[in-house]
Amino acid sequence: MLYVVGIGLGDEKDITVKGLEAVKSCDFVYLEGYTSKLCSFDLGRMEKLYGKKIEVVDRKFVEDSKEIIEKAKEKDVALLIVGSVLGATTHMQLINSAKENKIKVKVIDNSGVLTAVGITGLSLYKFGRVTTIPFDNENVKSPYDVVLDNKKLGLHTLVLLDIQDDKMMSAREGLDYFLRMGLDKEEKVIVCGGLGGDTEIKYGNIKDVSINKFPQCVIIIGNLHFSEEEFLKNYA
Amino acid sequence: MLYVVGIGLGDEKDITVKGLEAVKSCDFVYLEGYTSKLCSFDLGRMEKLYGKKIEVVDRKFVEDSKEIIEKAKEKDVALLIVGSVLGATTHMQLINSAKENKIKVKVIDNSGVLTAVGITGLSLYKFGRVTTIPFDNENVKSPYDVVLDNKKLGLHTLVLLDIQDDKMMSAREGLDYFLRMGLDKEEKVIVCGGLGGDTEIKYGNIKDVSINKFPQCVIIIGNLHFSEEEFLKNYA
Repeated sequence: MLYVVGIGLGDEKDITVKGLEAVKSCDFVYLEGYTSKLCSFDLGRMEKLYGKKIEVVDRKFVEDSKEIIEKAKEKDVALLIVGSVLGATTHMQLINSAKENKIKVKVIDNSGVLTAVGITGLSLYKFGRVTTIPFDNENVKSPYDVVLDNKKLGLHTLVLLDIQDDKMMSAREGLDYFLRMGLDKEEKVIVCGGLGGDTEIKYGNIKDVSINKFPQCVIIIGNLHFSEEEFLKNYA
Repeated sequence: MLYVVGIGLGDEKDITVKGLEAVKSCDFVYLEGYTSKLCSFDLGRMEKLYGKKIEVVDRKFVEDSKEIIEKAKEKDVALLIVGSVLGATTHMQLINSAKENKIKVKVIDNSGVLTAVGITGLSLYKFGRVTTIPFDNENVKSPYDVVLDNKKLGLHTLVLLDIQDDKMMSAREGLDYFLRMGLDKEEKVIVCGGLGGDTEIKYGNIKDVSINKFPQCVIIIGNLHFSEEEFLKNYA
């Protein structure tokens, strides 16, 4: 049996009661540590609360999936994922691969950044497609194109920022990418740090706004509704 | 102090450990029962797990917000919300109103339908704007327009369905709306029931696909990536 368990964004206590029960019942517990990072991560604290030894695994381990699949054929295995379970293709492939191997799969979802950005006061109904800026972005136009497509429809864009090993892209780097691509220098944007944890949000000018907490993300704004504008005053 | 606590989509055990701790510490606990419904709701079971008497409140109570605000000035109050906390404007207004009253607010988020649809295998990165069909939709064009805008960009559309009191719109009613508006009769769509709980998903023809579990939602498909198509075979 394979449990795929979202553990939310903040710290080890953001796991659900159902998720915790599943983890406690498992023989092997893995934490996928590459697609996102908890705002406040402490492996010792997590192992204590979950009552299990937890092995932190990398992208290759999950993509390869052999060890997880083999173990899940005989034993109960949990793969912990920061944020929502269902955001990343890798996890869906693992689930598919488990099903092909006749392994029972149970997904226990959690809060992810796609809904957590609602804390900014922007309506989740007014976001267009989400996009991600990779570190190696000199010849990458797609995040900019997504922003333009969304803006044409008056929609906001949630921009996720690359994570590689322990390096996380800052909102500042993301905004500099957009300035380089041609976004207006007077544009007002939102930057978020530590969403789902001890959150830091600023609403300011694309040229100079920045924050300190990680992980960070950026919102390029479409048309603002009056109630959204009201809420953003909290972050000016 | 006001805690706004997402309780997820499935049942009372989808609350997070952090959310449960907060609720257990509160003097008053309200459950907002109108923007969405748990797949499996039992007030007695919930009160037992949460260790509190829970008052189920309606839209008017939360929108009016006076009682919550007054109580939160002196005592610790939790408002429980099905799914993610941050999806609905009403909740953001309550949070804003609490802040204006100098009440400390803590948001504890959870999984919502916007990420839970990932279980279909469609990439969350390929969804455009979300939309909702109201019951009274004879002269309502916007959900159809949202679908067309998204389709132009090759994107999927998550279509939420109205809930009023204890009446929930079925996926079938939603699809009939789209047929009436002019979507192609041969279009293949996804219908989901009980997302986040004991989920039922079908991938089929817009004319006749239907499911039994509630709450339901619909996905109108944009361009499918090969890996998305692979996954959808599970639901054909």
